[in-house]
Amino acid sequence: MIDKHGFMKCISCNSTFDIDQNLIVCPKCGGLLEIINEKEIDIKRLKGKGVWRYKDFIPGNYKKIVSLNEGNTPLIKSRKFENLYFKFEGLNPTGSFKDRGMTIAISSAATLGYKIVVAASTGNTAASASAYSARAGLKTILFLPKGKVAKGKLFQSILHGAHIVEINGNFDEALDKVKKLFNKNKDVYPVNSFNPWRLEGQKTIAFEIFEEIGNPDFVIVPTGNAGNIYAIWKGFKELEKSGLIEKIPKMIAVQSSGSSPIADYIIGKKKKIEFVENPETIATAIRIGKPVNYMKAIKAIEDSNGYAIKVDDKEIIEGQKELAREEGIGVEPASASTIAAYHKLLNNGYLNKYDKGVLILTGHALKDPNILFEEDSYSISSNDIEVFINKLKI
Amino acid sequence: MIDKHGFMKCISCNSTFDIDQNLIVCPKCGGLLEIINEKEIDIKRLKGKGVWRYKDFIPGNYKKIVSLNEGNTPLIKSRKFENLYFKFEGLNPTGSFKDRGMTIAISSAATLGYKIVVAASTGNTAASASAYSARAGLKTILFLPKGKVAKGKLFQSILHGAHIVEINGNFDEALDKVKKLFNKNKDVYPVNSFNPWRLEGQKTIAFEIFEEIGNPDFVIVPTGNAGNIYAIWKGFKELEKSGLIEKIPKMIAVQSSGSSPIADYIIGKKKKIEFVENPETIATAIRIGKPVNYMKAIKAIEDSNGYAIKVDDKEIIEGQKELAREEGIGVEPASASTIAAYHKLLNNGYLNKYDKGVLILTGHALKDPNILFEEDSYSISSNDIEVFINKLKI
Repeated sequence: MIDKHGFMKCISCNSTFDIDQNLIVCPKCGGLLEIINEKEIDIKRLKGKGVWRYKDFIPGNYKKIVSLNEGNTPLIKSRKFENLYFKFEGLNPTGSFKDRGMTIAISSAATLGYKIVVAASTGNTAASASAYSARAGLKTILFLPKGKVAKGKLFQSILHGAHIVEINGNFDEALDKVKKLFNKNKDVYPVNSFNPWRLEGQKTIAFEIFEEIGNPDFVIVPTGNAGNIYAIWKGFKELEKSGLIEKIPKMIAVQSSGSSPIADYIIGKKKKIEFVENPETIATAIRIGKPVNYMKAIKAIEDSNGYAIKVDDKEIIEGQKELAREEGIGVEPASASTIAAYHKLLNNGYLNKYDKGVLILTGHALKDPNILFEEDSYSISSNDIEVFINKLKI
Repeated sequence: MIDKHGFMKCISCNSTFDIDQNLIVCPKCGGLLEIINEKEIDIKRLKGKGVWRYKDFIPGNYKKIVSLNEGNTPLIKSRKFENLYFKFEGLNPTGSFKDRGMTIAISSAATLGYKIVVAASTGNTAASASAYSARAGLKTILFLPKGKVAKGKLFQSILHGAHIVEINGNFDEALDKVKKLFNKNKDVYPVNSFNPWRLEGQKTIAFEIFEEIGNPDFVIVPTGNAGNIYAIWKGFKELEKSGLIEKIPKMIAVQSSGSSPIADYIIGKKKKIEFVENPETIATAIRIGKPVNYMKAIKAIEDSNGYAIKVDDKEIIEGQKELAREEGIGVEPASASTIAAYHKLLNNGYLNKYDKGVLILTGHALKDPNILFEEDSYSISSNDIEVFINKLKI
């Protein structure tokens, strides 16, 4: 069944195609595809909760829906900042925003009759692919950079029964393996974010934000492989086209200073992106030197009159503590980059405190429980309780 | 302001009191209090999402609401069993059902002007108390059994800035410390489940289940300190009193065979509960030998014509794998006890496959990432991919 309410377009060679779920990359040049949904978002038609609430506005034909009730995540108002909200994507079923895209991708794979799903991952995609594949009764093969995946994420992949290939190399090299395998073996379905169907699920982050607080002024997104910032922009773009919002919020990418090809391009006003060969950062989820979706991310940033910013590991750890200790929200390091970015953008005047905005908190703190804080003040002796309480009261 | 739509009653001496948020235990005998809500649940008055959607039916006066948008968790339909649903409480903000009660307890503490919150914990209460206290700007003191708290949970408590007292003893001894401290120091607010206000938040699990699937036939609840099974029963009881359901679902407690005082009492038809001095089980969240709420739990089980059942650690691990690999849901061991119990109850004829029921999955897999599975079949060599794919296809 061909979906007539949209089309697909290659961002490299500009070829266009009818909506076809079998297409993952451009059949002409191998470039990335965009899925253009031309169906107007009609709020009155929305039913249910989560990603599939918006199914009428997600192109494709889903005979088998593989869902864990993903999406419908909390939008938490900041306690410290009047006009700031946190979209807590860590409360998706496997603990990260990846589940929103995975439900679409794995539903496509199951509908099309695939039996084997493959992914490269810094960890969150691995956990999500493993869980959704398991639910669909499919097999999962993961390419993971050896020793570079946060403990919680590796544990999830094993728990959900994935088959793991450890790569002596970083994420970018793992992703190359997936691309090569996909090119020569038509039995495997790839669920990395070069798969545009995944981004159709992730765009629902924008729809949920809109339904709760209307039209924000800005959105800050941790940016690694760079699919999510594009997906969220795409969601707002569709809301704008449907006449539901007046302007696209400024899309702001935050990257770690050890892994910042997109921020360097935007801030440096470079003519060409320069990839980072050996990305390093404590924020493993965005430790990606060659973002596969960089063209899409740059389009989102430029179209929305947005920006990009770098934060270092120290700022990320401080941000993680700030969110946990002042807002009560536990996130993994990549997500904490957003609050560090917000402070910087307030300080440099790019944002002001009256701007209404959302930080996308992409993953839960429990994903990466290995960060140790230097202070040991948390530990107190049983004998000193009364003295300690008197000190606390002051 | 006195809430006239209910009263409080001691389950030990039967004294009754007006609704008073200052009361945590019976002022006459020190026994546990029940909070009786006499306001009929009116579905038309419900607004918003999560625990506070039901605020009109939660006694007490909350001038300060401390919330992370807890509740509103997925009710996931089983892929294998036609009439079975999973209430995935692991998707609360700190990864367990404890957040539902904590938002009420910490809102009470903040409303009443407390500055210091105390809790004993096997880990999940610690994580939740730390996060909500942080959000309220209060200090947290935790009593934790040394070496007995799952890694993720300890990490969360540190991340959220709690002050930790490690006890050379088990949870029951840690809880004794909290009770003693609470008796002699009126500056601390205790948030363990002997605090009946917490259970008022937890009862909303029943309300959410009802709003999605109506009246289930049974509910299986992992049972440690035994507050949750009572709280969920209480929610259904209020729905029944409001004329919204016809019968209370059978409340079924599942305990680990190394820590099963309530199951032993129910199954053995004993006259008196016998506590377990040295409880042992892989399911740390229910490793509790002296359940403080055992009287409430037994009331819930008996009133609902329910049951209790024991499962061993091997069955729990098998259950964890089954949920992860066949349903796609990652839970901590205590939660996995429910699917092991369901199998046993189907096999022994207590339940049949036409009974509509819900398993309460209390905590996320990421809470306890230390379980290792013996098989190493998950790891495959990069060179064997094609061979491996061909094997998978068969």
